[in-house]
Amino acid sequence: MRQSQLFTKTRKEAPKDEVSKNAELLIRAGFIHKEMAGVYSYLPLGLKVLKKIEAIIRAEMNAIGGQEIFLSSLQEKALWEKTNRWSDEVVDNWFKTKLKNETELGLGFTHEEPLTRLMKDHIKSYRDLPLSAYQIQTKFRNEIRAKSGIMRGREFLMKDLYSFSKDEKEHALFYEKAKKAYTKIFDSVGLGEKTHIVIASGGSFSKYSHEFQTVTPAGEDIIHICAGCKLAINKEIFIEYQGKGCPDCGGKKFNEEKAVEVGNIFTLGTRFSEPLGLTYIDEKDQN
Amino acid sequence: MRQSQLFTKTRKEAPKDEVSKNAELLIRAGFIHKEMAGVYSYLPLGLKVLKKIEAIIRAEMNAIGGQEIFLSSLQEKALWEKTNRWSDEVVDNWFKTKLKNETELGLGFTHEEPLTRLMKDHIKSYRDLPLSAYQIQTKFRNEIRAKSGIMRGREFLMKDLYSFSKDEKEHALFYEKAKKAYTKIFDSVGLGEKTHIVIASGGSFSKYSHEFQTVTPAGEDIIHICAGCKLAINKEIFIEYQGKGCPDCGGKKFNEEKAVEVGNIFTLGTRFSEPLGLTYIDEKDQN
Repeated sequence: MRQSQLFTKTRKEAPKDEVSKNAELLIRAGFIHKEMAGVYSYLPLGLKVLKKIEAIIRAEMNAIGGQEIFLSSLQEKALWEKTNRWSDEVVDNWFKTKLKNETELGLGFTHEEPLTRLMKDHIKSYRDLPLSAYQIQTKFRNEIRAKSGIMRGREFLMKDLYSFSKDEKEHALFYEKAKKAYTKIFDSVGLGEKTHIVIASGGSFSKYSHEFQTVTPAGEDIIHICAGCKLAINKEIFIEYQGKGCPDCGGKKFNEEKAVEVGNIFTLGTRFSEPLGLTYIDEKDQN
Repeated sequence: MRQSQLFTKTRKEAPKDEVSKNAELLIRAGFIHKEMAGVYSYLPLGLKVLKKIEAIIRAEMNAIGGQEIFLSSLQEKALWEKTNRWSDEVVDNWFKTKLKNETELGLGFTHEEPLTRLMKDHIKSYRDLPLSAYQIQTKFRNEIRAKSGIMRGREFLMKDLYSFSKDEKEHALFYEKAKKAYTKIFDSVGLGEKTHIVIASGGSFSKYSHEFQTVTPAGEDIIHICAGCKLAINKEIFIEYQGKGCPDCGGKKFNEEKAVEVGNIFTLGTRFSEPLGLTYIDEKDQN
């Protein structure tokens, strides 16, 4: 399409209530439109950028054997109760809605539960493993404050890949493959130099996780980057490493920087497969 | 990807509560997964088909000058009140939800309102017209019954194109272009032979609309197809034509068939631009 036919116009000012620099600039350039706090629509130029990023991600996910799927946003209460993630006291960012018959539904803020459940139809034996599936689609998160523009929206496009392995060893191999794929993605989009693998807390899932954090003054996280290598440690657990030094190179000098989380990987173990009853017939029991 | 690596398996039986033939077959073949009544996820093979259809549609929309955008699903109450479409008494298939501060939101079942509003930033003068924008994205509709599988879901992918013209003449030209683009799409996906342009009621928008209906025993609509040409008339308004005959060829013989609506086009006039205040500076007032 010719530039002269593009319907969007640039604007001198963003809406007065826009407090985020990224949204302000993208609105003024006609890439996005603000619908309400934390909710943005993508105009032709913004969507073009989004699709280019999607294509880069898709290629790397396919390269490690990821199979693309598209899961529903509407989520069943009974499913999430099985993993104890339905309650608003446990998960604080659900958007909930109702069918006409008053049945409660949620809007997917993540998709471990439905994906694990559907895999019960497809994983039967150790021969079906390992496998991984991914999606690039809208997540809904009912953030109390939404002041970071498209960096932390209430509705946003996210890629999530889920892997299923027969044991910890198989999982560890895939974990490393995924880590490399993520690194390639950030290199391809031109963020490689400023993006660090960061050791962080695993939250409710595991002791540690690996985050990918890009250094920027707009970042909401603080990371400590090893001066000797590229590894970094999230501020939330830095105290554990301050004495020991960098787990990769042993260096003791760290530089503190603001950064934004652009991806992360973590080990879920049997956190979802167990309550949802996803099991397989092992090699030794096959006959 | 090799067939041997595909994670989905075929199944002998669909879930017992599945009453739709299309969903039953697609579930058994491993193309889709049923999440709940009227809500399906797309597995790798299903998503591949969906993306092929998307690509065909996208090419035809681009060919008539449509510019692709991606609008939010979360919708603001105040916006829809302006066009009198917020109330559940007026629109019977809203899914509604709430922000943490109790502000009510809806999930887009269609997107005339947000698109018209955002165009206020981009349409200023007659020189900006005509223009058209389209999206291929999820709509949410709170159907009371959902027994038709993926033919009438509670959450489904839809392409909608919206056009803006400076007067009725310009609109009529675009309307005919869009009609031809739709015909090409149904030809490309292999439904051309069985798909008819159907004169139907315009519902709450206009006296008549044009539907595209594909003849199939699974159809929920009844159409009367002119035996002399390909035009058809929807049962709901057939009585008006029974005496006069076919408006295209004058033929008086019609064959009644079951059909499914696969698309439609209608003239909205100023139904949305007026309440939302979308206006432009006309040529004669430009200086």
